[in-house]
Amino acid sequence: MAENRTELNQIGEFGLIERIQKQFSLQNPTSVLGIGDDAAMIDAGQDYLLVTTDMLLEGIHFDLSYMPLQHLGYKAVAVNVSDIAAMNGKPEQITIGLGLSNRFSVEAIDALYSGIQAACENYKVDLVGGDTTASASGLVISITALGRVAKDKVARRSTAKNNDIICVTGDLGAAYMGLQVLEREKQVFLTNPEMQPDLENYEYLVGRQLKPEARMDIVHELAEKNIVPTSMIDISDGLASELMHLGRNSNLGVKIFEENVPIDSMTYETAIEFKLDPITCALNGGEDYELLFTISPADHEKLKNHPDIHFIGHMHSNTQQNVMVTKQQTIVPLKAQGWNHFKSFE
Amino acid sequence: MAENRTELNQIGEFGLIERIQKQFSLQNPTSVLGIGDDAAMIDAGQDYLLVTTDMLLEGIHFDLSYMPLQHLGYKAVAVNVSDIAAMNGKPEQITIGLGLSNRFSVEAIDALYSGIQAACENYKVDLVGGDTTASASGLVISITALGRVAKDKVARRSTAKNNDIICVTGDLGAAYMGLQVLEREKQVFLTNPEMQPDLENYEYLVGRQLKPEARMDIVHELAEKNIVPTSMIDISDGLASELMHLGRNSNLGVKIFEENVPIDSMTYETAIEFKLDPITCALNGGEDYELLFTISPADHEKLKNHPDIHFIGHMHSNTQQNVMVTKQQTIVPLKAQGWNHFKSFE
Repeated sequence: MAENRTELNQIGEFGLIERIQKQFSLQNPTSVLGIGDDAAMIDAGQDYLLVTTDMLLEGIHFDLSYMPLQHLGYKAVAVNVSDIAAMNGKPEQITIGLGLSNRFSVEAIDALYSGIQAACENYKVDLVGGDTTASASGLVISITALGRVAKDKVARRSTAKNNDIICVTGDLGAAYMGLQVLEREKQVFLTNPEMQPDLENYEYLVGRQLKPEARMDIVHELAEKNIVPTSMIDISDGLASELMHLGRNSNLGVKIFEENVPIDSMTYETAIEFKLDPITCALNGGEDYELLFTISPADHEKLKNHPDIHFIGHMHSNTQQNVMVTKQQTIVPLKAQGWNHFKSFE
Repeated sequence: MAENRTELNQIGEFGLIERIQKQFSLQNPTSVLGIGDDAAMIDAGQDYLLVTTDMLLEGIHFDLSYMPLQHLGYKAVAVNVSDIAAMNGKPEQITIGLGLSNRFSVEAIDALYSGIQAACENYKVDLVGGDTTASASGLVISITALGRVAKDKVARRSTAKNNDIICVTGDLGAAYMGLQVLEREKQVFLTNPEMQPDLENYEYLVGRQLKPEARMDIVHELAEKNIVPTSMIDISDGLASELMHLGRNSNLGVKIFEENVPIDSMTYETAIEFKLDPITCALNGGEDYELLFTISPADHEKLKNHPDIHFIGHMHSNTQQNVMVTKQQTIVPLKAQGWNHFKSFE
């Protein structure tokens, strides 16, 4: 195999997923939708059963030097619930695969599970199974979430229509800035262990990084208002990357307006402090776990006064044009930076 | 936390599972059965949907120095399908969480997926989703399998009846002996890399270790003969351990006869060569992925000539007596050794 070796970072995460997707086709009539959305769809009579798996690995997705185990447990569940939310579904069950090294005590595992339990209670999901094993190295958490959605209420990535309004919940870039703050304080601590970490002024950002919430509240509110998003995705890799998914999967282009992209003032100020461009943090930061969705223009009226839903642009027919109109009214192409964990440790 | 530190190996795998189980209760009406069987049961109208997760970690569950990636992919699917089989269900979908370090080339990942694909075709399952990410250390594979079973056909661990006949498929201990052979040849190779591994005479054993099959054939045959096992479990940790699960969960005792425990002649001879007791290998070896089940005595007639199903004993009412009658007619208690990966790297 040495003669013909292609490095993973030559094709990247999305390249790898596409490669896998091409290789596998669906055989069972109950398999309605496979790889390529926030969750798979399985036929379950009047509903679709939704299935999604997310894995969190120590040293890649979290750093236990500043991530308390309880928060980690909560986050591991929340990010999976977020994928169910992104299909407009309600989560019902999870299974957990856990790889533990001997450096974890029973008390540490209890802390991890207390976070998992808090998330289960909050999102009304049942832990129904899993696998616990030793790990030769770091902590490994793999969660599969199952959810349900009525067949006529499912929101996929591929079903946005031309002129649909692009909506985003909450605010963006905060989780990324929280990570920057935590990384800085870690470096300070490593240099001088006497120093107390200075997190007080960054509480919101750090909280967004350490304890994200899945926006099930939005899923419930949309149902109450009788709105089915024409497409939806959760923002795990960054707004730009997710917008490109919606555009490409729906065979449309996206146009957003910088001035409408919601950025919290603390995110904004901290970005400036770190000499980062706030809009870049919002576009490419990732881990916000907000929802990005499109609605028919006819539904705009029902949502226009919602304090936590922002209308950032619209879909259009030119698939070659995925753009942002800046505050200076210039048009810049969106770049799907996403994350590329394969590149991060070359 | 340092003042109050309980080591994981003080409570062991089963202790940890019990601890978790106590902490979580089921809230959703669709969650029919949670932790504690081969798979969870979710209400899906006329059927139960079955869900199971198994994780395979490099350095714990496999050694890439003798486990070809293609076989590993196959095995990762097979062990999950085996859990669905153990509920008397048919597998339909899987999701895969994959943690990869940069030492894996795209070609290596292709080899892994070609094994996964072969298993998907063989067991008629669809790969419907997953998560692929970087890993800071070894290869991590987490698979969740979904399956289905008609509600009146499900086989749980807890439903064996007094006097039911205990059946086991195939033969036992071969996968464990295969591992011993592979480990020995690895040591020989490490000592003298010029030496060719001597695996030719152990092909069956090595195959059982590297490429186990889930016994879906038995599930289909039982259905054809209109037999619903009164209880069932797959043999992943070793016969003794699984027998204890059936006994404890069904609130009964088990009695088996050594002379009826199926051991292949190659397993037997190789055990002797390794100075191991063949019956101990069969009782505690693990990874055979055969099915252990109980049937009502009334069904014995329908199965008695089946070449691959062995009647090794029966359930009885004394929960304190989990015993084996040896070839010398002495009665010895069964010990659930199971595996304890937590102990293996203290």
